[in-house]
Amino acid sequence: ETIDTPVFELKETLTGKYGEDSKLIYDLKDQGGELLSLRYDLTVPFARYLAMNKIQNVKRYHIAKVYRRDNPAMTRGRFREFYQCDFDIAGQYDAMIPDAECVKLVSEILNQLDLGEYIIKINHRKVLDGMFAACGVPDDKFRGACSAVDKLDKTFWDDVRAEMIQEKGIDPIAVDKIGKYVELKGRTELIDKLLEDEAMKAQKSAVEGLEDLRVLFKYLELYGITDKVVFDLSLARGLDYYTGVIYEAILQGFAHNPKAGADGDESVSVGSVAGGGRYDGLVGMFDSKGKKVPCVGVSIGVERVFAIMESRALASNTKTRTTETEVYVVSAQKNLVEERMKICKELWDADIKTEQSYKRNPKALDQFQYCETNSIPIAIIIGGSEIEMGVVTLRIVGSREERTVQREKMVEEIKSVLANLN
Amino acid sequence: ETIDTPVFELKETLTGKYGEDSKLIYDLKDQGGELLSLRYDLTVPFARYLAMNKIQNVKRYHIAKVYRRDNPAMTRGRFREFYQCDFDIAGQYDAMIPDAECVKLVSEILNQLDLGEYIIKINHRKVLDGMFAACGVPDDKFRGACSAVDKLDKTFWDDVRAEMIQEKGIDPIAVDKIGKYVELKGRTELIDKLLEDEAMKAQKSAVEGLEDLRVLFKYLELYGITDKVVFDLSLARGLDYYTGVIYEAILQGFAHNPKAGADGDESVSVGSVAGGGRYDGLVGMFDSKGKKVPCVGVSIGVERVFAIMESRALASNTKTRTTETEVYVVSAQKNLVEERMKICKELWDADIKTEQSYKRNPKALDQFQYCETNSIPIAIIIGGSEIEMGVVTLRIVGSREERTVQREKMVEEIKSVLANLN
Repeated sequence: ETIDTPVFELKETLTGKYGEDSKLIYDLKDQGGELLSLRYDLTVPFARYLAMNKIQNVKRYHIAKVYRRDNPAMTRGRFREFYQCDFDIAGQYDAMIPDAECVKLVSEILNQLDLGEYIIKINHRKVLDGMFAACGVPDDKFRGACSAVDKLDKTFWDDVRAEMIQEKGIDPIAVDKIGKYVELKGRTELIDKLLEDEAMKAQKSAVEGLEDLRVLFKYLELYGITDKVVFDLSLARGLDYYTGVIYEAILQGFAHNPKAGADGDESVSVGSVAGGGRYDGLVGMFDSKGKKVPCVGVSIGVERVFAIMESRALASNTKTRTTETEVYVVSAQKNLVEERMKICKELWDADIKTEQSYKRNPKALDQFQYCETNSIPIAIIIGGSEIEMGVVTLRIVGSREERTVQREKMVEEIKSVLANLN
Repeated sequence: ETIDTPVFELKETLTGKYGEDSKLIYDLKDQGGELLSLRYDLTVPFARYLAMNKIQNVKRYHIAKVYRRDNPAMTRGRFREFYQCDFDIAGQYDAMIPDAECVKLVSEILNQLDLGEYIIKINHRKVLDGMFAACGVPDDKFRGACSAVDKLDKTFWDDVRAEMIQEKGIDPIAVDKIGKYVELKGRTELIDKLLEDEAMKAQKSAVEGLEDLRVLFKYLELYGITDKVVFDLSLARGLDYYTGVIYEAILQGFAHNPKAGADGDESVSVGSVAGGGRYDGLVGMFDSKGKKVPCVGVSIGVERVFAIMESRALASNTKTRTTETEVYVVSAQKNLVEERMKICKELWDADIKTEQSYKRNPKALDQFQYCETNSIPIAIIIGGSEIEMGVVTLRIVGSREERTVQREKMVEEIKSVLANLN
């Protein structure tokens, strides 16, 4: 299914869902009536929608704009208004079946878009929590540790380590233990190894998370994408509402290079193009009785994908046509605007995408130039002699080949030329 | 071309463009930075976009949401957030060629949507101004007279007359003269008659407008839509920025009946589904040097069109499918989730739209019920014996016809069945 929700939500709906980033929410002015804010993502509105409409299960996608009062970075595809494309599966189902489908979907999309090599990093909130506990981080510092680890894709471990110790007040011994774990990457062999790890296997949360991941990796193998996924203990994802599996897709050619510095080489720092995870508690926050609807989903960063595709098109000098016009009706002499209109009507009626000049007596050169500039494949040319003889001249713009066509055969001939050109 | 503009504009961009309706604009809260408002229509953002990007000519469409702090009326398709679909032609061209194309386009769209009989009312701001002058209305009261006449599609002449006299302070003799003119409807014969009318032909503005309309009706005849258009002197359209031809498409079965009263029979009061006109001065308001770009365009009221299509579908009990799933993979026994996943992968890889249950061991009945509820045409059924024999059972959900298919022929067979069903 596809759904659409309003661009604004009640302000209170968004409150407390985005941690530190809440300061980036756009509020509407109080003009009387409800206090409103522009949506910050598509996930919270989706959860609100499910709770409000008492929907227990649905699989939906939603492509729409979201709003953040952030510093824009055009070349990285970061704007204050930008599209997100979300896919979510809501419902009380068996472990990892919907989760595996979300990861498979990301992989299918990235394959189809042909953006080059990518890897989907996978982790689990319970594994993270178990890992923090195993390292000796107290419960109330999990969140802080998690948001520090989340920065590992942008900065060096030394900076993250300093943040954990100095800002988050975590014991250096615990931090150094974390440092060993977050280096780990692998697949089922790593899952098995961690299930044997003395410190980890003592944590119920870690074991539950690892068991989930074992099932997930089995399913991903059946879906044929084992080589596209990696279990990565450094993946944290900042949002508060995740409760289970989390994942993020990174384009390999565009991975952020910390050495480039904060402002260096922005044009290739668009690595992360999709991310998501399981959020089983969010819908319940909007239900008067707290009734939960488990959900798992993914957001595709459409703008980042477009930024990459555009820079590639520019680099390869590929010209992208932005119109679909098939035929341009050209008058080779003056005072033929009415004849052109008759031809346009005939072609429009035959569902052929047709344009003409909006001038009464356009110059022939300007009309041909328009065809070239806009890559219009066919020109239909009329002059006095054509009208007298009941014919038109059909020109293939690309090859400049011309042929004379009987007026009553015109539509048929154009359709056959178009079919051959495609 | 299609373009996209942000959902918010600088507040000052929208100021002074919508007359009395400006009070319906949503403003954003001042959180530091520019003062912003949500767009009220797509025309003003388009004009701002042209001026800012120094675009002299373009033909674009734009489908997007606009925002009005109005009283919603769900059944009439009136919301605070609603889609508009705009088509505009910008550029310095010869008279009435782009204007005729806009009217032709409205006609094509309404024909395609098959919403029933409709009529496109046409008038001209210069004809209206000339008419007011001819009736003895002073210049400074044109705008007031115009906004009163604009209500004629919703109320009786007596009410409009009272408003002109009491609220707008127009001389009753002038008002009664206006009353005679606004009754007039016709085509070229009416244009000719008014060009002979003593009072009208004394007004330069009226003559210019009528000459434009004569050319327009000639072009519309060439475009084959004379029977769909009518020159109607009661058409005014409220927006300040129109400078030339104006038009509005009314569905005949849904014309507003003033006798039904303000709240009566709302469900059929969606008569007007498209409107537009020429606005030659708007772009210049956003250009630092006041450089004008003449424009003409039309807005389609997508929400109203949908309201009509939905009520028709409801009335005729037509079930609209909201998903495109072609195949549902059913397991007839327990412990076959991994087999289902293998089949899903195979079908997805072959671009067949496929779903399965997210439960490990769903009940057979639930799975078939899902197919029926969602009008999924094909079920692929697997059980222990199918797997052993290397086959699947293909069921046509509609006819319940079943056949056994070799596993390696499955994709081919599904494609052939789908081709036959379509």
